[in-house]
Amino acid sequence: MGILVVGSVALDTVKTPFGKVDEALGGSATYFSTGASYFTDVRVVAVVGQDFPEKHINFLKTKRVDLSGLSRVPGKTFRWEGFYDFDLNKANTLRTELNVFETFKPELPEQYRDSEIVFLANIDPELQKSVLGQVRNPRLVAADTMNFWIESKKPELLETLKLVDILTINDAETRELAGEPNLVKAARKILSMGPKTLIVKRGEYGVLMFNGGSIFSAPAYPLEAVFDPTGAGDTFAGGFMGYVASTMDWSDGNLRKALVMGSCMASFAVEDFSLGGISSLDYKEIETRFREFKKLSHFEDL
Amino acid sequence: MGILVVGSVALDTVKTPFGKVDEALGGSATYFSTGASYFTDVRVVAVVGQDFPEKHINFLKTKRVDLSGLSRVPGKTFRWEGFYDFDLNKANTLRTELNVFETFKPELPEQYRDSEIVFLANIDPELQKSVLGQVRNPRLVAADTMNFWIESKKPELLETLKLVDILTINDAETRELAGEPNLVKAARKILSMGPKTLIVKRGEYGVLMFNGGSIFSAPAYPLEAVFDPTGAGDTFAGGFMGYVASTMDWSDGNLRKALVMGSCMASFAVEDFSLGGISSLDYKEIETRFREFKKLSHFEDL
Repeated sequence: MGILVVGSVALDTVKTPFGKVDEALGGSATYFSTGASYFTDVRVVAVVGQDFPEKHINFLKTKRVDLSGLSRVPGKTFRWEGFYDFDLNKANTLRTELNVFETFKPELPEQYRDSEIVFLANIDPELQKSVLGQVRNPRLVAADTMNFWIESKKPELLETLKLVDILTINDAETRELAGEPNLVKAARKILSMGPKTLIVKRGEYGVLMFNGGSIFSAPAYPLEAVFDPTGAGDTFAGGFMGYVASTMDWSDGNLRKALVMGSCMASFAVEDFSLGGISSLDYKEIETRFREFKKLSHFEDL
Repeated sequence: MGILVVGSVALDTVKTPFGKVDEALGGSATYFSTGASYFTDVRVVAVVGQDFPEKHINFLKTKRVDLSGLSRVPGKTFRWEGFYDFDLNKANTLRTELNVFETFKPELPEQYRDSEIVFLANIDPELQKSVLGQVRNPRLVAADTMNFWIESKKPELLETLKLVDILTINDAETRELAGEPNLVKAARKILSMGPKTLIVKRGEYGVLMFNGGSIFSAPAYPLEAVFDPTGAGDTFAGGFMGYVASTMDWSDGNLRKALVMGSCMASFAVEDFSLGGISSLDYKEIETRFREFKKLSHFEDL
């Protein structure tokens, strides 16, 4: 069973203390579907302009990503430019050009409408809802969002959240969405807004999952070489949802494994610029890193 | 087998968003020995002034802490005043009065000199070295330090570090001591300065241990009620070293369990002001929380 993802496909210009890329392949749907492609089939809903390089299309095709929902329209592709200092947890935006994304009204191809697993990447909550409305009978819906939507479209976001099973946001967004500084209390508030599961991404500090009454803390992999954190969160979501879709099991125990799988994929993503870190992994490398996560967090009971 | 600790005994005035205490019992040696007292005997080396309330002495006696190395001298006890905002990770110092601590020249009672396990809490690295020099045959030495000593007494600190087996510092201090922004590289540098084990405290994000070639990531316990983070790091060290001393086993596997035990004790400490959270625990509560840490971080292998 595959996953439907709606999100951005972008050209990113990124500078970090370790180098720079110009107009590299980026966007939430791109990172998500590349991360998920190691586990399951992915159907993309997104838009690019006439200027979008064919080589990027070809790359996504090598990952067997279904691009029948990727519209190419007149105009320029969505662009983001930003930089990171040594504190790689914080992206500094220099420029966001929505371009063709500004008037994007996603229309699902007929053959996408039977999708059972849906990921609504970080876009306007009204678009998220409209995409979800076109899926006939979704069984598991996950979504991402950000401070911009919490601040500018809270009522619309709350409407979308009612339809979402799993929300993946960072810790500042968790506190902001709930209006509560304590993370545990904030999580409980958010679990009363619709989602049954809240996944709090904390960058180099790992991930916390609040799933009903259970809390799971997954470490991040301590890396010696973090070159570019762009797309880490979307790659995490791709690995996580990809593993869930490949097992069709959303018990707490399996969500924990999936979350570690997402963390593995994110750890590969940040080891290179753009999609470099996750463009050509083999499954053995992923398994090996999963086992390193296991060793990293293991301790004996009393 | 017990532990010898040298550090401060203080009167703390602390304000957090949840309340305030005036001249409450505090200090690194106090938090450390109370945390360790649940696991082993503790011998304290510290100094207080004539104004130090007898009730605090009596409290430490109820924890069976050996106070024969606590000097009471003319003058005022060490005082610290500070506050925390909603970001409870960051202590803001308003006032530090060293008072009797300023001229403190620790002299070990004869019966302390056979101590096998030593903890050098965060004090002047020259004092740390002088105390250690009075111990005949230490088998395991752990130490804490802070940015103030890294900046003002680096050569002396480096001398002390040569004699230290386990160093416990926070992540900013790790980067600063090594002069290296990447935590993994910074840790490796510090492991070439003397310590065989580096424990990096990350507040609400848990603890990382670099032990030879092995890395262990322990979560922090997600608490709904953090009232006062003062002393969390010293209580962590007390639980950690107390468990190590009670087992006399510093294999990697046992250090991991000890580190989780330290995290348990720290999680109790922050649930109340001053020593309130760790003054009257029973061992069953500690075991229960240890098992909650186990559940919190558990996931199945692939």
